[in-house]
Amino acid sequence: MLEQLKKEVYQANLDLPKHGLVKYTWGNASAVDRESGLFVIKPSGVGYESMKASDMVVVDLEGNVVEGDLNPSSDTQTHAVLYKHYDKIGGISHTHSTWATIWAQAGLDIPAMGTTHADTFYGSVPCARFLTQEEIDRGYESETGKVIIETFEKRGLDIEAVPGVLLKGHAPFTWGKDAKTAVMNSVVLDEVAKMNLFARELNHFAEELPQSILDKHYLRKHGKNAYYGQH
Amino acid sequence: MLEQLKKEVYQANLDLPKHGLVKYTWGNASAVDRESGLFVIKPSGVGYESMKASDMVVVDLEGNVVEGDLNPSSDTQTHAVLYKHYDKIGGISHTHSTWATIWAQAGLDIPAMGTTHADTFYGSVPCARFLTQEEIDRGYESETGKVIIETFEKRGLDIEAVPGVLLKGHAPFTWGKDAKTAVMNSVVLDEVAKMNLFARELNHFAEELPQSILDKHYLRKHGKNAYYGQH
Amino acid sequence: MLEQLKKEVYQANLDLPKHGLVKYTWGNASAVDRESGLFVIKPSGVGYESMKASDMVVVDLEGNVVEGDLNPSSDTQTHAVLYKHYDKIGGISHTHSTWATIWAQAGLDIPAMGTTHADTFYGSVPCARFLTQEEIDRGYESETGKVIIETFEKRGLDIEAVPGVLLKGHAPFTWGKDAKTAVMNSVVLDEVAKMNLFARELNHFAEELPQSILDKHYLRKHGKNAYYGQH
Amino acid sequence: MLEQLKKEVYQANLDLPKHGLVKYTWGNASAVDRESGLFVIKPSGVGYESMKASDMVVVDLEGNVVEGDLNPSSDTQTHAVLYKHYDKIGGISHTHSTWATIWAQAGLDIPAMGTTHADTFYGSVPCARFLTQEEIDRGYESETGKVIIETFEKRGLDIEAVPGVLLKGHAPFTWGKDAKTAVMNSVVLDEVAKMNLFARELNHFAEELPQSILDKHYLRKHGKNAYYGQH
Repeated sequence: MLEQLKKEVYQANLDLPKHGLVKYTWGNASAVDRESGLFVIKPSGVGYESMKASDMVVVDLEGNVVEGDLNPSSDTQTHAVLYKHYDKIGGISHTHSTWATIWAQAGLDIPAMGTTHADTFYGSVPCARFLTQEEIDRGYESETGKVIIETFEKRGLDIEAVPGVLLKGHAPFTWGKDAKTAVMNSVVLDEVAKMNLFARELNHFAEELPQSILDKHYLRKHGKNAYYGQH
Repeated sequence: MLEQLKKEVYQANLDLPKHGLVKYTWGNASAVDRESGLFVIKPSGVGYESMKASDMVVVDLEGNVVEGDLNPSSDTQTHAVLYKHYDKIGGISHTHSTWATIWAQAGLDIPAMGTTHADTFYGSVPCARFLTQEEIDRGYESETGKVIIETFEKRGLDIEAVPGVLLKGHAPFTWGKDAKTAVMNSVVLDEVAKMNLFARELNHFAEELPQSILDKHYLRKHGKNAYYGQH
Repeated sequence: MLEQLKKEVYQANLDLPKHGLVKYTWGNASAVDRESGLFVIKPSGVGYESMKASDMVVVDLEGNVVEGDLNPSSDTQTHAVLYKHYDKIGGISHTHSTWATIWAQAGLDIPAMGTTHADTFYGSVPCARFLTQEEIDRGYESETGKVIIETFEKRGLDIEAVPGVLLKGHAPFTWGKDAKTAVMNSVVLDEVAKMNLFARELNHFAEELPQSILDKHYLRKHGKNAYYGQH
Repeated sequence: MLEQLKKEVYQANLDLPKHGLVKYTWGNASAVDRESGLFVIKPSGVGYESMKASDMVVVDLEGNVVEGDLNPSSDTQTHAVLYKHYDKIGGISHTHSTWATIWAQAGLDIPAMGTTHADTFYGSVPCARFLTQEEIDRGYESETGKVIIETFEKRGLDIEAVPGVLLKGHAPFTWGKDAKTAVMNSVVLDEVAKMNLFARELNHFAEELPQSILDKHYLRKHGKNAYYGQH
């Protein structure tokens, strides 16, 4: 069942430790098959080095396991809520990568201070609020998905133009057209989190990128007039 | 004698340089066999790359060598005091890992500022006081163990819920149900030490995690209602 | 066509990830053949691990592709403008390396605070201004080259003595007698960017290097009285 | 000639990039043979990966080449001056390692803030002054050696108890009983430089280690009552 997608999700999960984004089992990537309405996700608490593609778990958009011998990631409900609400998301990545998590712990949005950021994120990456006690009791992981949606709706953000979010006191989620892109966006987010932190330490008055350069860099890689890469 | 435990302790010691927690011979892991009342520990000043499982030293809870051709770690008495006092500790790890040691040198507790911390440590990781001259003269390593116990007792902390400590001006000790878990807790401690330092630098008013989220994250991984991983 | 130069440029591009200067496809190195008036550059958006020497693209000094199946780097026009204006440049390297980019995002020149800097850069590495909307519309990449030239001319800097520049809000460009040297200068620039940032954090009054020591270190490696290395 | 010493010096030089202390050719280690009054040092500007043990250069205590086809390190005179003045030095290491160099650029002594420091350096590692123009003209490298001696003499420091120094605006030199130990001391110095910088950033009032703990840690590893390791 979904054997090709399992391979892609497996590979994307292996990319997490390869890029230094996770230690032990602290991260998970998934991808959705829109035709069947099912997604594939890493099993919970299983080490990357011992994991096989066939260990990936198939789940429906309510978060119910459809196929697999292992429990899916404890964050499965967050993935399910996002896939269900946003049909433009093809893959999701969740890590506790060092520098993005630092911004999450600081409770701050990551501003667009450079073109490395603008190449992937069209503006600030928002930091969502803490969950309330009531939300935690109702279902921590599904409510986490809902708080992400609330953050994007309240701020009028486009999920494709800003493919990531910070959860206050927790860590980032990123997404993309597939699992590989979602993981790449995790890599970019961690790197710009690091750059922006030290740019502000070096110059407390360091500016955000002018709109004109933000536009230029984002649009040379994204949209119908993109000219980066091989098309 | 305790051949299986020697292998586990050997492997846990190799995990220390693998995770970047030690340089040269600066770290040691051990594990106890409660039935025989003996523990196994790394030999002193021996390099990780040349070490063999059979080089591990067997010691009793008073710190006397029971088997082994090499001197045990110079920190053996600290391990012995902790194993003797706390029967719930199965393994101990001591490193001078960079970021945890920085907090130890700063003389500060590591507060629970994120879920990465809460997944392992149920609250702040305490920083124990300097030893006095009298304590140093009486037995530096055994008194180090006693100062750890004093810290946990004075603060009413549970050794299982907070499996680590900083020694002021020195470095961390962590523990767990076995040597592997003790080392994993060293890895987590170093990572949260790094995250928390920079979160505070980025936002001097960065908050500690609300109790509700601390509870949620700790309890989804620990205790009878845990649902993380494969059970 | 230019097979030897393609190999050199290919190798210099591989040095970028090897030295930790780039993630994914974020960087490009090139080298010029002055006799034919052509230069060789990395193709756009192609991964370093899958790339072959024969994938390198041959371009003229107006930035027109002369040979190659792939699109050249999206930054090709910047390289072209620099090669055309400065006949002493043999190779160019562009990265978003972490620490140099941090200074670019902070909008600050990197001062010569140590001999590691002075061994390669004879004085501050300048930070060029943001491009205007008009310049972006006219041709972002070629105008980037022109802003670099403007910066060096306004400040009266020698392109050989200061083989690098920061673009505000963007990242560094470096150059040298060939592609390999250009990449080496990217490595040096990133390292001194890191050193200088933390030296200033450690001591806000940390001084720039006295002229006498700047002269000594630069001139023991460069110019007719150099005595470093094997001549 | 001195074939065994060449192998040791070669190996010690390879340890420099292995421990992440040098990039390209930025470092050199040497060792002295007191019987013949000759020392062996890395050739100048030669890469670590292409170097062979037989490329090491034999030099006398005036810095004259006695054997070898290659030019010796450009810092040879500094090594010569130190070997000639201090008969207790057996090996010397010079790097531009990141964190120690940051303290050199900040122009500050590295205080003994933790036991990681005290295990190797018995007190602060001093930062020597800038050389004057006159000294530079007279002989930069030999005068660098003299400024190191001046620093230790003025402060009444013991070269064995404090086996390293920072040169203001430049970088560290360390030494030991042989080349391997000198390099190990470079590793320790860089690590404590990093720890101390961030400990001070985390807590501006972070204290130096009390004398009693400095004594304990230094003396459990050094001197006649040492009990660390296998004796």
